[in-house]
Amino acid sequence: MTSGMTTDGHGDRAGQAAMESVEDYLSDVLAAIAPLPPLELGLAVADGSVLAGDVAARSPLPPFDNSAMDGYAVLAADVATATAEAPVTLPVAAEVAAGDTAQRELTPGTCIRIMTGALLPAGADAVVPVELTDGGSDRATFMQAVPAGAAVRRLGGDASPGDVLLTAGTRLGPVQLGLLAATGHDRVLARPRPRVSVISTGNELIEPGRPLLPGQIWESNSVMLAAAASRAGAVARRHPVVRDDTVSVLAAIDEALAGADLIVTSGGVSMGAEHDVVKAALTALGTVSFRKVAMQPGMPQGFGFVGPDSTPIFTLPGNPVSAYVSFWLFIAPALDALQNQAPRMPAVRQATLAAPVRSPQGKRSFLRGSLDPGAGTVEPVSGQSSHQLAALARSNALIIVPEKVTGLGAGDTVDVLDLP
Amino acid sequence: MTSGMTTDGHGDRAGQAAMESVEDYLSDVLAAIAPLPPLELGLAVADGSVLAGDVAARSPLPPFDNSAMDGYAVLAADVATATAEAPVTLPVAAEVAAGDTAQRELTPGTCIRIMTGALLPAGADAVVPVELTDGGSDRATFMQAVPAGAAVRRLGGDASPGDVLLTAGTRLGPVQLGLLAATGHDRVLARPRPRVSVISTGNELIEPGRPLLPGQIWESNSVMLAAAASRAGAVARRHPVVRDDTVSVLAAIDEALAGADLIVTSGGVSMGAEHDVVKAALTALGTVSFRKVAMQPGMPQGFGFVGPDSTPIFTLPGNPVSAYVSFWLFIAPALDALQNQAPRMPAVRQATLAAPVRSPQGKRSFLRGSLDPGAGTVEPVSGQSSHQLAALARSNALIIVPEKVTGLGAGDTVDVLDLP
Repeated sequence: MTSGMTTDGHGDRAGQAAMESVEDYLSDVLAAIAPLPPLELGLAVADGSVLAGDVAARSPLPPFDNSAMDGYAVLAADVATATAEAPVTLPVAAEVAAGDTAQRELTPGTCIRIMTGALLPAGADAVVPVELTDGGSDRATFMQAVPAGAAVRRLGGDASPGDVLLTAGTRLGPVQLGLLAATGHDRVLARPRPRVSVISTGNELIEPGRPLLPGQIWESNSVMLAAAASRAGAVARRHPVVRDDTVSVLAAIDEALAGADLIVTSGGVSMGAEHDVVKAALTALGTVSFRKVAMQPGMPQGFGFVGPDSTPIFTLPGNPVSAYVSFWLFIAPALDALQNQAPRMPAVRQATLAAPVRSPQGKRSFLRGSLDPGAGTVEPVSGQSSHQLAALARSNALIIVPEKVTGLGAGDTVDVLDLP
Repeated sequence: MTSGMTTDGHGDRAGQAAMESVEDYLSDVLAAIAPLPPLELGLAVADGSVLAGDVAARSPLPPFDNSAMDGYAVLAADVATATAEAPVTLPVAAEVAAGDTAQRELTPGTCIRIMTGALLPAGADAVVPVELTDGGSDRATFMQAVPAGAAVRRLGGDASPGDVLLTAGTRLGPVQLGLLAATGHDRVLARPRPRVSVISTGNELIEPGRPLLPGQIWESNSVMLAAAASRAGAVARRHPVVRDDTVSVLAAIDEALAGADLIVTSGGVSMGAEHDVVKAALTALGTVSFRKVAMQPGMPQGFGFVGPDSTPIFTLPGNPVSAYVSFWLFIAPALDALQNQAPRMPAVRQATLAAPVRSPQGKRSFLRGSLDPGAGTVEPVSGQSSHQLAALARSNALIIVPEKVTGLGAGDTVDVLDLP
C-alpha cells in the first residue's frame, strides 16, 4: 500500500497512528498563512476588506457649522424675549439652502431663512426651528426663545482632524464605508476579500445539465464550495471540471493562480496510486503536505503552497459532505488569516440529542443534525455517509462527538455547530 | 407650514398627533409588497434566491451503484472464509476507475479492482477495502470477510426519483446549490435576490475624493446603503448624486427603474417646500405616501410604488444615522417580502445600561450603543445626533427606548438590536 491509499473515514487502520487532531492541523494551517499585502481599494469594492492602518479624519466632520433643522438663523439674543404672547418679528434678509456655497453674514436684528444642512451664516449663533415661528418669507415672527447653539451642528462636532476614525484591523462594513466617504476618502489601504478558485477533479464529473453516461455523476462540489467561500467573505470563482491526470491538474492550478489568493481542490486525494492525481501532482512539487486528520468525515487533508507567490492551496476530499465540513473547519478560518484577522470559528452550542448516535473510536465525528434552537434539541438526520448531499441539505447543524466517545444516547448533551 | 415642513426627530410638535407606530408602518409596507415573479436562474447566480416551487429528484442519487472505497469488488460469498490465518486469493479480472462508463461484469471466483465512486460491476455485491487485502494487481489476497453490501453506495441511497429534495420557499445556500447540481439541475425556478438602486439627492453632495467648497459635504449615504442592501441579500447599485430639482429626481428614478426591483432614495424629504424635491416629485405621482413614524431617528418616511411595474420605493431621510436605522427596520424586511419570505427581523436581546439615556416622549428611540455581549452590558456612545456617523461607526447595537419612556438609568435593563 502507498500512503496514497487512504480512504475517507472508513477503516484505514494502518493510518490511524499517524492521525493528527483537528486543532493541531488547523493551528499548523493558520501559522503558515501570511496575510495578503494591503491594496489601495476604491470604496465600491472595499466592503468586507480589512483596514491595514488607522484612518484619521483629514478634515473636520461636519466640515462647517450648519443647521440641524429648517428654520431661521439668528442671534439668540435677538429673540431672547420672544413668547407666544409677546412674539419678536425680524426681517428675513436672505435664504440659504443646503449646498449653497456663499458664506452669508447675519446682520444683527435680522434673520436668514436656513434649511437643514446649510452653511450657518457668519454671526448667527442659533437656528430657530420653523415650527416655533410663523414661517414668513419677508418677515418672520418668533414665538419662542432658543439658547445660543440651538439646532446648530458645529464644525468638527462628529470628528476633528487627526481623530482616529477607524483603527487598523477593522473589517469594513456599511457604516465604516459611509464614514470613509463622509470624510472624503474614496480609496483606502486594506487587505481585500481573498479571491478563491475552486477546482473539482474527476473523470466521472459532468457539468450539471448535460447528459450522464453510466458511471458518471454531475459535478456539484465546486458549485457548493464557491458559494461557501462567498458566504465566508471571499470572492469565489469556479474552475471548469479537470480530468484525472497530473498534467491537467497542474495546468488548472497554473490557470487559477493568476486570479487567486487561495486555491481549493476537491477530489483526487483519497484514491489509489495512479488515480490519486491531485496528490501525485502536488507531492511532486514538494510544497504541499498530505495528512490524516482524526475526524469523520474529512480525514484526508492536504495543505501547502503553490506558484510564484506561494499561494495557499487546500486539497479537499471529493465526497461532498467531507469537503463541506472541511471547508468550514479549516478554509474559512484561513480566509480570515489572509486578512490578518483572528479566525471567526463557527460558534459551538449545546443541545440535547433526540436519538442515539455512533462514532468511530479515535476520530472526532461531525454528524449531520437538525437543530431546534428553541427546544435546544438536535436530531441526527438519516443518511450520515459522506456522499449523502440530500441528507446534508436537510441539516442545519453538525453534532460533534469527541474522539474518545463511540456512542451517545437520546437525552445526552452534545456540542453542535451551526451549519452555514 | 406645509406638511412638507417636517424635521428629522426634532420638535415637530404639530406633526406628533399624526405619527404612526413603527409596527403599523412596517406592517403597511409588508402588506403592500408583492413578491417578485420567479425566474429561471442559472446556479451561478442563484445563491440567496428563494425556490418558487418544490424541486424533486429527476434521477436517483447516486445515479448508479458505486464503490464507497478503493478496493476490490467481489461476491461476498467468495471471501466469506477469509481470515488473516487463512486468506483467500482471487484473480484480478479487471480494474474500474471513477468515470469509467463501461458496465463490467464480475465472474464469480474473480475480483475486480475498483476505485471510490466507480460503477460497481454487475454481479458484485460488496467491496473489500484495499486495507484488508495485499493490494495485488494480478491476484489479490483477502485477509478478512465482508458482509454483502459492504462499501457499496446503492443507486438512490441518497434520493429516489420523485423525492422532494427542496421545498418551495427554501432560500438557496451552498449545500442546496450543490444538491441541485448533483441532481443535474443547472437552472432553477426561484425568486432572485432583489436588485436595489440607491439614489442620494442634494445640492450639497460631492463625490468622495473630489474637493469641497464651503457648504458642501461628501456623499456617503448611497455608499453606506448600497453596502447595507448587499448585506441584506440584495444586489445593490449606487446611482450618481442627484441635484435638488424634481426633473433630475424623476429622471434618476426612471433610469434606476430599468434595473431595480426596489428603489431607495435619501434626502429631499425633510426640508421646506421648494427644497423638498423628492417629496414634491413623488407626491405629484400620487403613488407614494409620506408619513411620520413615531421613532427617533427616522421620523419622516415615505413609501410607495413607481414606474410601469409598480416598483417599491422608500424615501429615507438624508441624515445618515436616520437612513441607516430606517434601512434595517423597514427595507431589509421588505427585501425578504420581495422573495416571498417571512421577514428576518433583527434579533432583540436584553442588556444592562451602563449609563443613563434620555428619549423624547411619544417616540421610540434607537440610540447608538456599544454592546458587550459577554458582560451583557451596553454603553450609549457619545454623539447621538442623527448626523453623527463617526459615533455610529463606534456602535455595534441600537438601544431601544419605548415610546412612553423618557429616561432610563444606569443598571436598567433595555432591549437592544445588533447593528449590522
